[in-house]
Amino acid sequence: MKYPRPRGTKDYLPPESYERRLVLEKAREIFELYGYGEIVTPAFERLELLEAKAGPEIKEQIYWFKDKGGRLLGLRFDVTTSVARVVASNPTLPKPIRFYYIAPVWRYEEPQRGRLREFWQAGVELIGSPEVDADAEVIALTRRFFKELRLRKVTVRLNDRRVAEALALKYGATSKKEEFFRALDKLYKQGEEGVTSELIRLGFSRESIDGILNFITLSGPPLSVLREGMEELKEFKEGVEGLKSMEELILTLVDHYGLTEEILKVDFSIVRGIGYYTGLVFEFLYEGEGEMRNLALAGGGRYDNLIELCGGPELPATGMSIGVERVMKALKDAGLLNAPPPQADVIVIPVNEGLRRASVRIAETLRDEGIGAIVDVNRRSLRKLLEYADKNEIRYAIIVGPKEYKEGMVVLKDLKSRSQKEVKLRDLSVELRKG
Amino acid sequence: MKYPRPRGTKDYLPPESYERRLVLEKAREIFELYGYGEIVTPAFERLELLEAKAGPEIKEQIYWFKDKGGRLLGLRFDVTTSVARVVASNPTLPKPIRFYYIAPVWRYEEPQRGRLREFWQAGVELIGSPEVDADAEVIALTRRFFKELRLRKVTVRLNDRRVAEALALKYGATSKKEEFFRALDKLYKQGEEGVTSELIRLGFSRESIDGILNFITLSGPPLSVLREGMEELKEFKEGVEGLKSMEELILTLVDHYGLTEEILKVDFSIVRGIGYYTGLVFEFLYEGEGEMRNLALAGGGRYDNLIELCGGPELPATGMSIGVERVMKALKDAGLLNAPPPQADVIVIPVNEGLRRASVRIAETLRDEGIGAIVDVNRRSLRKLLEYADKNEIRYAIIVGPKEYKEGMVVLKDLKSRSQKEVKLRDLSVELRKG
Repeated sequence: MKYPRPRGTKDYLPPESYERRLVLEKAREIFELYGYGEIVTPAFERLELLEAKAGPEIKEQIYWFKDKGGRLLGLRFDVTTSVARVVASNPTLPKPIRFYYIAPVWRYEEPQRGRLREFWQAGVELIGSPEVDADAEVIALTRRFFKELRLRKVTVRLNDRRVAEALALKYGATSKKEEFFRALDKLYKQGEEGVTSELIRLGFSRESIDGILNFITLSGPPLSVLREGMEELKEFKEGVEGLKSMEELILTLVDHYGLTEEILKVDFSIVRGIGYYTGLVFEFLYEGEGEMRNLALAGGGRYDNLIELCGGPELPATGMSIGVERVMKALKDAGLLNAPPPQADVIVIPVNEGLRRASVRIAETLRDEGIGAIVDVNRRSLRKLLEYADKNEIRYAIIVGPKEYKEGMVVLKDLKSRSQKEVKLRDLSVELRKG
Repeated sequence: MKYPRPRGTKDYLPPESYERRLVLEKAREIFELYGYGEIVTPAFERLELLEAKAGPEIKEQIYWFKDKGGRLLGLRFDVTTSVARVVASNPTLPKPIRFYYIAPVWRYEEPQRGRLREFWQAGVELIGSPEVDADAEVIALTRRFFKELRLRKVTVRLNDRRVAEALALKYGATSKKEEFFRALDKLYKQGEEGVTSELIRLGFSRESIDGILNFITLSGPPLSVLREGMEELKEFKEGVEGLKSMEELILTLVDHYGLTEEILKVDFSIVRGIGYYTGLVFEFLYEGEGEMRNLALAGGGRYDNLIELCGGPELPATGMSIGVERVMKALKDAGLLNAPPPQADVIVIPVNEGLRRASVRIAETLRDEGIGAIVDVNRRSLRKLLEYADKNEIRYAIIVGPKEYKEGMVVLKDLKSRSQKEVKLRDLSVELRKG
């Protein structure tokens, strides 16, 4: 009997696991360049904590279970909640706190384009600053991540929850705000038709729908979009505050971090699902070709209430997370994901069993010097092993024969160029490093 | 309200998270030196798969739950089972397969010394070779891991399941074999008294208990212990086979890999809990001081039936896993775990808000050159920021003042030596790299 892998999950084998690592290590490198420190938290949390953040409905969207003590536990749906718990229970951590994580999360949804039930997030939390400077830093480091991966056509889409709230107020949608926000969020996935039919379903008038659609599709240079937004929402104090802080953020990103208007967009359709954002919300939208087109590769925003919600003091906070699988897919589609597998470059082959000991010792010496090496463990023939090396893209074979070995020599075969030569044992590692 | 962390779990914050990473990266490095490729599998598997490996009782020892489709899922208790599933469903993978993993696993047990409910394993599987060479490779690479971490007093304890089976047969324990094995396994944790009282509880006679205890405490040079074992079990064909293959393994480890008798021990008390081993079983036992004393830091063995059990072809296999938290604790107790946190070394401080832009740009330039840098996001004073830098062990402060900056200069302050000097902007990264 074969056992299937659980629905919505994925296995990574070489070489894909190396491509994955390339993306993860790039994220780690960038996070550390900005002074973020790694945090690792458990896969599950007390269900109450997850509900405190996301409401009791969350039970429908996560994996949860009862432990033997009758306590309810749930697999985390993000890492931010766990970070909030840690910060809430460690009040002496010096502020601001810069944490990063690279970890799987689990969501119990129908698997769909770019969405698995288990997926990996790489993200940061910057906790303890209410300033736009903090938001700018988080966006700038995310931008650097994509830039260093050379992934083009990733635009930064900015909005502010207070703007979305004002829009809801203006169109009388406050009683069904959640559904209203969800409808706006459909713009990239389902186009204007998708948003329209959703708004019709929610009972909006034709006129309101036109107004809403017009607002959320405003485009152009960010500052002029902000001006149009200001015109539209000028009676809504909080909305105006949101627009003003976006303006400050954009000026900071352009002026301090050198982001250009080409990639920086104000986009009033961005609201982001999870309910805890209090100010800025943003997504890094992929506008290249392929399956990931018009999906968010990263997203985040400001959540000034979360730490308090999780039992801690009032602490302003901002953060973001990158969807690792989506980035991998976009990179792959763009032909940018070709990690050379860091597996052993060398196979050491004894021509007879009497030379196995010598072969293992040669391999061990190479490993001492940091060179990866394989010795066959199936007592296969030279011919079979050269075949195996080819199939596994091993570059060099070291062939250990009785006559040569007695003279302190081996045959070094370059399986790519198909050339070979006799090499002194003591020169082996130097020869191999020449490449 | 504060939310506690779930029982039996742990958070890693800097600097502990860096110490952890040091151990994980060392494991990764060694695994790759031996030609192993990374595999990443989901956190949960179909419960049937977990039961196929570990029996229906496993439900008592793991976290499991039902998904919306009514399928039972369980958090993995090891990674080997998942690897077996992958190998079973990918029959064309070239053999032998060398996979490694670094991943958390979950076991629903009472948290105790050196044992959490969520803990991390770093391990390898070598699938497709029935030879002792494969077992030797796995043990040798584990040995290299501990050696490179400079952790001393780690001995390799070897046994063979066939020997344990023969012992059970000899003392009429086959009907209660599981409990018998569990009793033997108590030797290091609870001493001879622990084993004795367990064997009494299982109804063994005083004479049998003496015989058993005498056998499992045999010690001395490995080959002479094997000879004594041979004498004891000579009527049991499979037991003798087990002893012979241990002999071959020991000779290989000594002769090919240079292991010494000082760290290589035959130890008939080692059986290892989980029931799927078919031949060799081994543990790396910590004999240093501290809380980890007499606990296994790594363990493994041969499981020639597992791939078939998981729905695949008959494929011999051997493997091992390292308990990451235990290794960290042992290293810490031995004073060997002092990772310098790779966090930003530099804080860039504008003396007034007008120089914030300049400060961010300086930091961005440093990051371009691979130097980690922080810029304050709380608009704090110079004095406060120097305090913050101290608390966070940041080495350098770059102070951006109006007069100096106009002349293309900044003040570079070494917070360790308390010295400072003016440095040209274009020389900054060179100065910082000097250290």
